[in-house]
Amino acid sequence: MRITIIGSGNVATHLAAAFKNAGHRIVQVYSRAMQNAALLAYHVKAEPINDLIQIDPETDIFIIAVKDNAIGVIAEQLAVHQKLMVHTSGATDMFALLAFADNVGVFYPLQTFSKTKEVDFRNVPLCIEAANESIAKQLQELAQTISNKVYCIDSAQRKILHMAAVFACNFSNYLCAIAQQILTQHQLDFELIRPLILETAEKVQTSLPANVQTGPAVRNDEITMNNHLQLLKDTPNLQDLYTLLSQGIIKLDIERHGDK
Amino acid sequence: MRITIIGSGNVATHLAAAFKNAGHRIVQVYSRAMQNAALLAYHVKAEPINDLIQIDPETDIFIIAVKDNAIGVIAEQLAVHQKLMVHTSGATDMFALLAFADNVGVFYPLQTFSKTKEVDFRNVPLCIEAANESIAKQLQELAQTISNKVYCIDSAQRKILHMAAVFACNFSNYLCAIAQQILTQHQLDFELIRPLILETAEKVQTSLPANVQTGPAVRNDEITMNNHLQLLKDTPNLQDLYTLLSQGIIKLDIERHGDK
Repeated sequence: MRITIIGSGNVATHLAAAFKNAGHRIVQVYSRAMQNAALLAYHVKAEPINDLIQIDPETDIFIIAVKDNAIGVIAEQLAVHQKLMVHTSGATDMFALLAFADNVGVFYPLQTFSKTKEVDFRNVPLCIEAANESIAKQLQELAQTISNKVYCIDSAQRKILHMAAVFACNFSNYLCAIAQQILTQHQLDFELIRPLILETAEKVQTSLPANVQTGPAVRNDEITMNNHLQLLKDTPNLQDLYTLLSQGIIKLDIERHGDK
Repeated sequence: MRITIIGSGNVATHLAAAFKNAGHRIVQVYSRAMQNAALLAYHVKAEPINDLIQIDPETDIFIIAVKDNAIGVIAEQLAVHQKLMVHTSGATDMFALLAFADNVGVFYPLQTFSKTKEVDFRNVPLCIEAANESIAKQLQELAQTISNKVYCIDSAQRKILHMAAVFACNFSNYLCAIAQQILTQHQLDFELIRPLILETAEKVQTSLPANVQTGPAVRNDEITMNNHLQLLKDTPNLQDLYTLLSQGIIKLDIERHGDK
């Protein structure tokens, strides 16, 4: 397909590369900052543009991979070309595009991307939504050229999925950042707990997390929990967090096993 | 070395197997429940016992891998044999053993173990502490036979490390359990976010988590955060957790970049 990429952030970059590798033609890359457009366009052999007036209408699909609050403005301007357009946002309703055109859908890659780390796109779940059956088929075919995991997910479900991802990814990473901070304050190397973090994630690849919960809270080990709260006495925010998370784990265990 | 394993839980099981694989002789496996002692003893070709009276004194080291609150009672009984003894607990001071004998240390594997999943022990950080230099040397040599990552960590540091591990492992797993619960409630498959969980952990194998934080909170995307709080309106505990974690991430970002 001929694909136009709107945006130059992490999602735009990884998607553009995956499409290019799958043999599609990237027509143009748009970014407000010409420098960013040029960098990504260079990698995927496309034309960089920094003004939507320069859009080449000879394309099959506009992939809008920009900040959520910019999707509407851009969609409105692209609608004049009457081409298929999709956004890539987990948190945004398909209606953000339907307000301006009929020929729309959503192409949401459920993964965390960073500029410096390659991702194997074949394992990235792609969540597809479309304004009609024919678009759904097109998007599904396009998705299958880059991923083995294509799901049809409507806007309501996608918002749930995105929120679940915030817990499992963004918040988990923050807990690792807290661990990093605690270790650094005590001259301990973050390297010490890297294997633990990886194993924790690998465990839930085959098990359900509620079934493999470990630690003082699930054992209801009050002595250790109180010792930890004592160690956190200078950071009341972390004490609150520790308490709330531990209470949640205790409650989780009660729900599974009954009150012991 | 001739090694006696006290305990039959996850740590005891994985340590015993790693020692056996490294060519050590497991003399006995003790568990209060003969059935558990027998199962592990069978795998590592040792004698199972369920009473400390049956301890064979012809051993080089007692590895006490039992619940934290049982360490003292067991150490007191083993002390009569005047052999080297170590515990494997992250949260317990070496003093729990020093109270009964001089010939003691700590052998703390910083990893999460489950009965059903194999772990490559060569990558498991082993945190060693010893009552004197000569014991330190012995434990270090023993540790190096099963792991490439041996660290000398004193009791105060080990408690910090254990608390950091609770955040990075136990609490992260709980956040995945929350995600699981949210998805299940909305007929979505947990499989959808497994690749995301793995990638989140893989990212911090080479980066520091504070440098790769993503999500609505770090972008200060109030619309998305408010939408998520709205979706969580029937679970006030999760709302509180969402707010506390998001505030922490915003604060983390402010500390790194200055107030924007």
